[in-house]
Amino acid sequence: MSDLHRPGLENVIASETAISYLDVEEEEIVIRGYDLIELAQNVTYLDIVGLLLYDVLPSKRSRKDLEGDIQKEYGLPQNVCSVLALLPPQAHAMDVLRTGISTLASYDPELDDRSHEANVRKALRLLAKVPQIVAYGYRAKYSQPFIEPRKDLSYTANFLYMMTGHVPTQLETDIFDQSLIVYSEHEMPNSTFAARVIASTQSDLYGALTGAVASLKGTLHGGANEAVMAMLLEAGTEEKLESILLAKLQKRERIMGFGHRVYMKKADPRALLMKTALDELAIIKNQPQLYNMCVRGEEVMKREKNLHPNLDYYAAPVYYLLGIPIELFTPVFLAARTVGICAHVIEQHDHNRLYRPRVSYTGPRNLHPSTAESL
Amino acid sequence: MSDLHRPGLENVIASETAISYLDVEEEEIVIRGYDLIELAQNVTYLDIVGLLLYDVLPSKRSRKDLEGDIQKEYGLPQNVCSVLALLPPQAHAMDVLRTGISTLASYDPELDDRSHEANVRKALRLLAKVPQIVAYGYRAKYSQPFIEPRKDLSYTANFLYMMTGHVPTQLETDIFDQSLIVYSEHEMPNSTFAARVIASTQSDLYGALTGAVASLKGTLHGGANEAVMAMLLEAGTEEKLESILLAKLQKRERIMGFGHRVYMKKADPRALLMKTALDELAIIKNQPQLYNMCVRGEEVMKREKNLHPNLDYYAAPVYYLLGIPIELFTPVFLAARTVGICAHVIEQHDHNRLYRPRVSYTGPRNLHPSTAESL
Ligand SMILES: CC(C)(COP(=O)(O)OP(=O)(O)OC[C@H]1O[C@@H](n2cnc3c(N)ncnc32)[C@H](O)[C@@H]1OP(=O)(O)O)[C@@H](O)C(=O)NCCC(=O)NCCS
Ligand SMILES: CC(C)(COP(=O)(O)OP(=O)(O)OC[C@H]1O[C@@H](n2cnc3c(N)ncnc32)[C@H](O)[C@@H]1OP(=O)(O)O)[C@@H](O)C(=O)NCCC(=O)NCCS
Repeated sequence: MSDLHRPGLENVIASETAISYLDVEEEEIVIRGYDLIELAQNVTYLDIVGLLLYDVLPSKRSRKDLEGDIQKEYGLPQNVCSVLALLPPQAHAMDVLRTGISTLASYDPELDDRSHEANVRKALRLLAKVPQIVAYGYRAKYSQPFIEPRKDLSYTANFLYMMTGHVPTQLETDIFDQSLIVYSEHEMPNSTFAARVIASTQSDLYGALTGAVASLKGTLHGGANEAVMAMLLEAGTEEKLESILLAKLQKRERIMGFGHRVYMKKADPRALLMKTALDELAIIKNQPQLYNMCVRGEEVMKREKNLHPNLDYYAAPVYYLLGIPIELFTPVFLAARTVGICAHVIEQHDHNRLYRPRVSYTGPRNLHPSTAESL
Repeated sequence: MSDLHRPGLENVIASETAISYLDVEEEEIVIRGYDLIELAQNVTYLDIVGLLLYDVLPSKRSRKDLEGDIQKEYGLPQNVCSVLALLPPQAHAMDVLRTGISTLASYDPELDDRSHEANVRKALRLLAKVPQIVAYGYRAKYSQPFIEPRKDLSYTANFLYMMTGHVPTQLETDIFDQSLIVYSEHEMPNSTFAARVIASTQSDLYGALTGAVASLKGTLHGGANEAVMAMLLEAGTEEKLESILLAKLQKRERIMGFGHRVYMKKADPRALLMKTALDELAIIKNQPQLYNMCVRGEEVMKREKNLHPNLDYYAAPVYYLLGIPIELFTPVFLAARTVGICAHVIEQHDHNRLYRPRVSYTGPRNLHPSTAESL
């Protein structure tokens, strides 16, 4: 047995993968050989979908086919909508999403087929339906009518449209598309790891994704983006944000949106892209103070703790300006990451080995029921 | 970065724990200091619940209190029942259970409280409600009326009663109780690991359990018990079972119910207990051939592959003779394991460190979108 216990499996290699890699030295997020930031500046989210699921960047023509393949799968079974409508008003949007995906599983005709091809087809179905569960779950909760997906809009524009009820501008669509790219895949974060662990029992893609939703809900992971927005709204001004941050640091609280297990002492390159997007959007939306406030927060955290913002820190205000309801920030993260998680589950099923680690036991030994002291 | 990749994290220590430990050398399954087999022979499932959640074996008096505490939580929110009723007939019982638990989350008033005490209270609620979701999910699927839990029956007798519609005999209750004990906790199998990974993002107990259900569904894990029963029923006789096993081995297929990552070349001591229970039950139920067939299967696998039966191999025919529907075998496993998983999540939240491992990247590098070859 290995004698070394690294809490949180820090720096432990949990899998081989050809999907992605955080090269901390070169400061590159490698996605199937490409630099994620370069991709985010040059291609669209659907290209990333193609790259992650089919291993090559699609041509313009095949990107259209891919979009058509996904659009063909738009629509939710009536009973899934009914389940969403039954969930109580207090339900957290991630719990709604988890329940929606869990319910949807039984409607996939290929649920039990773990072949590579069937898994890819299921991934396309999920890409079609997860945004709809995100949007419908929210609208059901607030008793708003569902907004049917529109095939005349691009995949990305339609996703925004179903959530907000407004057809987005080209700039809004482009910025949202870029955010989907930077959220799409990121090596082995907790949620992806949870999905691979689950899939390794030969369980199915939907179950694995359900586990990933549960993971991403946590505030140390995806849940951070909503907490960031709550803090920014509470602050309202640069000065107030600074004093909130200082007070929290004084109390040794964690500041959401800062720090990262892998690039703890370097900037998250994805955050920088979203920072630029926020700058642009804040001007157009006539809310420059939101951008200035975020920059101030970044400066304070650098000065006080030498901590850098992570993606969630800048994605949150971007989503806010795009009109996405705050409680959907983490569900949108999950929707964007669905393709990455699916790619990992597919890889896991293609080269499976059951995850079954050991423990270091710290409890007592040699107790016997006959001599037990009792409660 | 650690240079060694052990596929499936085999022999990697993923956590410290004071809950349980598989001591392969001493052939002992240690549960908070006690030998699981000795416990299964001397105490009841509710004692194990007390031991796992409160760290001491309860006295007779406090066991009654514990039973009362759980019984107080009997009952499902109406909307959870409605969701179960909406699931389609083709839904796998584990998918029904996953969706039920996922739905139930929003009704727990302490969902977001991760303190030790609140987590223990949530565990008691889950112990009350998970068996009911198991039973109701099945009855909804087959349009049978729900059977309300009965507080005049013991916890264990009531669980069997809700599934079968018959009040079990004392012997049936005792055997089922013993099966719940041997399923209750087992160190760090995939499902428990998945739950701890999820909980480590500060996500909640229900979400973590949802992920564990997804994991346990897989045929390399909990799903094996149903596959075992299918094989036994297909065989029907000792001779036929032998030829089925030989044919499968010839085709290099895996035989469900044999082998184990940790004690691969030794017998699973839990399986031996269930073997004795099967012997007893098979006589009373006048089905001795079922026992004889299982023994033959065990002999064949020992002779041909030097593989030993695991718990699922003997638990499956025991559950069959207890009148539990085959598709509920894995859900019952999950219900019995709920207490172990809850204990692990509580321990994880009490001493948390985010799980975030790394990968060994095997894909290409230095590709650029401008020069990409396309689909
Ligand atoms: C992401 C995160 C969980 C990674 O943490 P980790 O690898 O477990 O790092 P540690 O908990 O060991 O933190 C190392 C040190 O940095 C500090 N630190 C890390 N992130 C911090 C934060 N966001 N605010 C304040 N201090 C932080 C820790 O307190 C610790 O300091 P100490 O050694 O003085 O106690 C952590 O940075 C965090 O909680 N961030 C906030 C949540 C968030 O934004 N999540 C989204 C991630 S994409
Ligand atoms: C439980 C299990 C997944 C553990 O497997 P593992 O640690 O991953 O072990 P491996 O897959 O490395 O197996 C080691 C060898 O034993 C063989 N083996 C293991 N279990 C076997 C089984 N049930 N039937 C046939 N051969 C088996 C493997 O084929 C392999 O042989 P090889 O080296 O000639 O290829 C495995 O034993 C199994 O699949 N069992 C059947 C499912 C089951 O009963 N699960 C319930 C577990 S409680």
